[in-house]
Amino acid sequence: MKRTAIQLHQNDNVAIAVELIPVGQEALPGLIALEDIPQGHKIALHDILKDSPIVRYGVDIGYAMHNISRGRCVKETSLRLPVPPKLEDMHWGINTSAALPTATRSTFKGFVNPWGGPAGTRNLLGISTTVQCVTGVLNIAVQRIRQELLPRYPYVDGIVALNHAYGCGVAINAPDADIPIRTLRNLVRHPNFGGEVMALGLGCEKLTLEMMLEKEDNIQENVLMLQEIKGFQAMISAIMEMAERKLKKLNQRRRQTLPLSDLLIGMQCGGSDAFSGVTANPAAGYAADMLVQAGGTVLFSEATEVRDGAHLIAERCADEICFQKLVSEMRWYDDYLTRGGADRSANPTPGNKKGGLSNIVEKAMGSIAKSGTAPIVEVLSPGEKPTKKGMIYANTSASDFVCGTSQLASGITLQVFMTGRGTPYGLAAAPVIKICSRNELKEQWGDLIDINAGLIATGEMTITEVGTLLFNEILDVASGLKKPAAEEYSIYNDLCLFNPAPIT
Amino acid sequence: MKRTAIQLHQNDNVAIAVELIPVGQEALPGLIALEDIPQGHKIALHDILKDSPIVRYGVDIGYAMHNISRGRCVKETSLRLPVPPKLEDMHWGINTSAALPTATRSTFKGFVNPWGGPAGTRNLLGISTTVQCVTGVLNIAVQRIRQELLPRYPYVDGIVALNHAYGCGVAINAPDADIPIRTLRNLVRHPNFGGEVMALGLGCEKLTLEMMLEKEDNIQENVLMLQEIKGFQAMISAIMEMAERKLKKLNQRRRQTLPLSDLLIGMQCGGSDAFSGVTANPAAGYAADMLVQAGGTVLFSEATEVRDGAHLIAERCADEICFQKLVSEMRWYDDYLTRGGADRSANPTPGNKKGGLSNIVEKAMGSIAKSGTAPIVEVLSPGEKPTKKGMIYANTSASDFVCGTSQLASGITLQVFMTGRGTPYGLAAAPVIKICSRNELKEQWGDLIDINAGLIATGEMTITEVGTLLFNEILDVASGLKKPAAEEYSIYNDLCLFNPAPIT
Repeated sequence: MKRTAIQLHQNDNVAIAVELIPVGQEALPGLIALEDIPQGHKIALHDILKDSPIVRYGVDIGYAMHNISRGRCVKETSLRLPVPPKLEDMHWGINTSAALPTATRSTFKGFVNPWGGPAGTRNLLGISTTVQCVTGVLNIAVQRIRQELLPRYPYVDGIVALNHAYGCGVAINAPDADIPIRTLRNLVRHPNFGGEVMALGLGCEKLTLEMMLEKEDNIQENVLMLQEIKGFQAMISAIMEMAERKLKKLNQRRRQTLPLSDLLIGMQCGGSDAFSGVTANPAAGYAADMLVQAGGTVLFSEATEVRDGAHLIAERCADEICFQKLVSEMRWYDDYLTRGGADRSANPTPGNKKGGLSNIVEKAMGSIAKSGTAPIVEVLSPGEKPTKKGMIYANTSASDFVCGTSQLASGITLQVFMTGRGTPYGLAAAPVIKICSRNELKEQWGDLIDINAGLIATGEMTITEVGTLLFNEILDVASGLKKPAAEEYSIYNDLCLFNPAPIT
Repeated sequence: MKRTAIQLHQNDNVAIAVELIPVGQEALPGLIALEDIPQGHKIALHDILKDSPIVRYGVDIGYAMHNISRGRCVKETSLRLPVPPKLEDMHWGINTSAALPTATRSTFKGFVNPWGGPAGTRNLLGISTTVQCVTGVLNIAVQRIRQELLPRYPYVDGIVALNHAYGCGVAINAPDADIPIRTLRNLVRHPNFGGEVMALGLGCEKLTLEMMLEKEDNIQENVLMLQEIKGFQAMISAIMEMAERKLKKLNQRRRQTLPLSDLLIGMQCGGSDAFSGVTANPAAGYAADMLVQAGGTVLFSEATEVRDGAHLIAERCADEICFQKLVSEMRWYDDYLTRGGADRSANPTPGNKKGGLSNIVEKAMGSIAKSGTAPIVEVLSPGEKPTKKGMIYANTSASDFVCGTSQLASGITLQVFMTGRGTPYGLAAAPVIKICSRNELKEQWGDLIDINAGLIATGEMTITEVGTLLFNEILDVASGLKKPAAEEYSIYNDLCLFNPAPIT
């Protein structure tokens, strides 16, 4: 039988409506809705007195602004936002021994990474740029490379122009400039670029080749500077010639059977709703636990969606270094928001709220479900590369584009993207698997959603089942056996570097 | 006879080398170079004592860090940066009666703007977006529209997808969020989009259609929301159908002879060198004065490159409102930079310095030359639309991409871009005329540079001659009689919205 409302934790005093519960209908045995409860919204399980906590996920997600009767809808306007957990009161290492589900596969077929580190899941020609000045010329060249050269190199999966808005007109020595610079540096050697560096610069920009490239990569056969080339037509020729040299090399590469310890993936959610934390994100967390159990590495991110659960993440930190980094990253983000006259309450979108998410605490509790239960072995600053394997918190903004770009810089070769409201999000440098939180989205976007976790809400599948399905999908896509929808249609978002430093 | 060194102002104690002046060669009558003076770099005309001013453009561009002998090179490391002019000590209205050169033409052939305001110089289909989530799908649709539909509508010049990184994952209520929101709102109704609004949204983003569109534009025939459409293939069809309806209407439009008071253009410089302030920028200033004399409107911008000449701009302000706005915009930018741990000295690039520009004061004096001599009738915040005609300071960052995007939002239908080191910069929504400051760049990039102002440095042309040439080029390009190089090759930079508010 399909479920009408979902109570997640025994201490919860609200449940969420699986579908619209009309006034007068029984939501749970003996509980009659006193008003319409829209899909994903909360119904009060008991009378809730003014100022007492609203509890979901076993956590106080807010305090009642007024008395709320049993059977009433707990609306966004009925909750007062709690203060976030105090960073100085957090503890580490007290929740690091969860039993992880056993992985049913231990290998995948990937491309050995010539630079060392995580294996590639695709064989791409990545063209790095120091500055947006070169974008216009590069785009024209890339179009021609795709049409004229790529078909001759069937073992190369595609070309990625790493266009971005950084590189000049920026305060490159400002305290926070290390973030975009590190992000670009790490993108150059993305594991899906097969050990080949191709970089395009202008010649007078602030971000020099020396700043963007490893010393050994900054050699004539890898770099082109437009100001040194005699005119537009010669620029196009020079880019195409270098691209062809790289394509020839990349075309020699073949997949090999590799242990899952060579796999580094990222998880992100976007356009979340009240089901995200019940269906898609817990299923992603289950798949993450399986991957970690098998030796793989999984990044989760999104500072403002972790902040209200930071104490729970802290408890899972495996050591003090990891914990202290978590504290400092969270503090940095708090300060950054304060400097700009905002705080984490700026996060939920109108769509989140329409989907039943009342505030950032409720959103955060759903968001961190994607991190599963494994110990957190490392915390990364935005765009940093991991040095450990296992579950890792990679601090980034929650913005889909910024998070995607930052995780790519950290080296993910595949991303799992959970969505409730729906977004056609995709990345050019790594395949993206999209998993939706509601059956309605799968029905609406049948050709864009790869996995439907909505069946968990209706009781037709379990978290374990969808999680295992996702685990297998991750390995199939990583191995090149399957293309997710975004990759099939070439739906790609632009890179969006996180630059908290000023524009000049 | 070609010149060897240029002294710009009678009070200057330095001159700049037109080409490399080798040690021992005569730079000016009786002045022997005591060391090699690289092209664009400064030679001391007199002995300069430690701590005394280095004077160029008749202005103290810095103070000597050590004694500098007559004939020596005044290097970047020889100057101490002066403090910027105090905003509270500036005066307005004392330099507002310059005699402007007479314009030789009084009309151009443009597209009447159905929304009112400046005329169009191109007939484009502009597709606005609320959020980057839709970019991947839109780009695929646009490619098909270009291939399958556009050839059937020969009076339409092109299609512009207004992709950007804003719209969600941002602190949309933060104090500074008005800047990106205003910029996007104003871009929707760009004069080159012929009165047709086409807007694409997702459905759950923070920047809603209500926030981005005028109320009368937010109607079913103008907007598509991806979450309301049943899958990817249907999205592409829906976008193409709407585009075709718009193309049909746009295809009816024809150019008309219009007065220059209907023309709104922008001026910007990028990749500047020591010649920019001697050749390209003064020539642009001369053309600007001609346009203003004929009733046209010219925007100049770039906060950090105006800051050190703010007192000179203030003196040209036509009224107190304009002056007070200048003060408040300059103060806002000072504070913005300070908040991020930077100041205006973050501006010059390695390329600027290589080109002989020692610091931001020297760069600024060259930069403001593009504003000519006309009174300043209005000062705009970033992305604001002008309400007056004449010479206008539109406050934007000096970053080429941010300035270009902001000036487009202000409604420019053509941009003049001065460059010393060289950039292949272009805009999709308005043609860009590129004018270089040195003969060498014209030789190197013959097919990318439209006008060579380098002949002024070598004494082969005058500022008046190049300025008049540029004035005619502006009107020819605005009238659709000519395509500048960037438009001819479709070299387009991406939009880059100025968002000083936090990412969440």
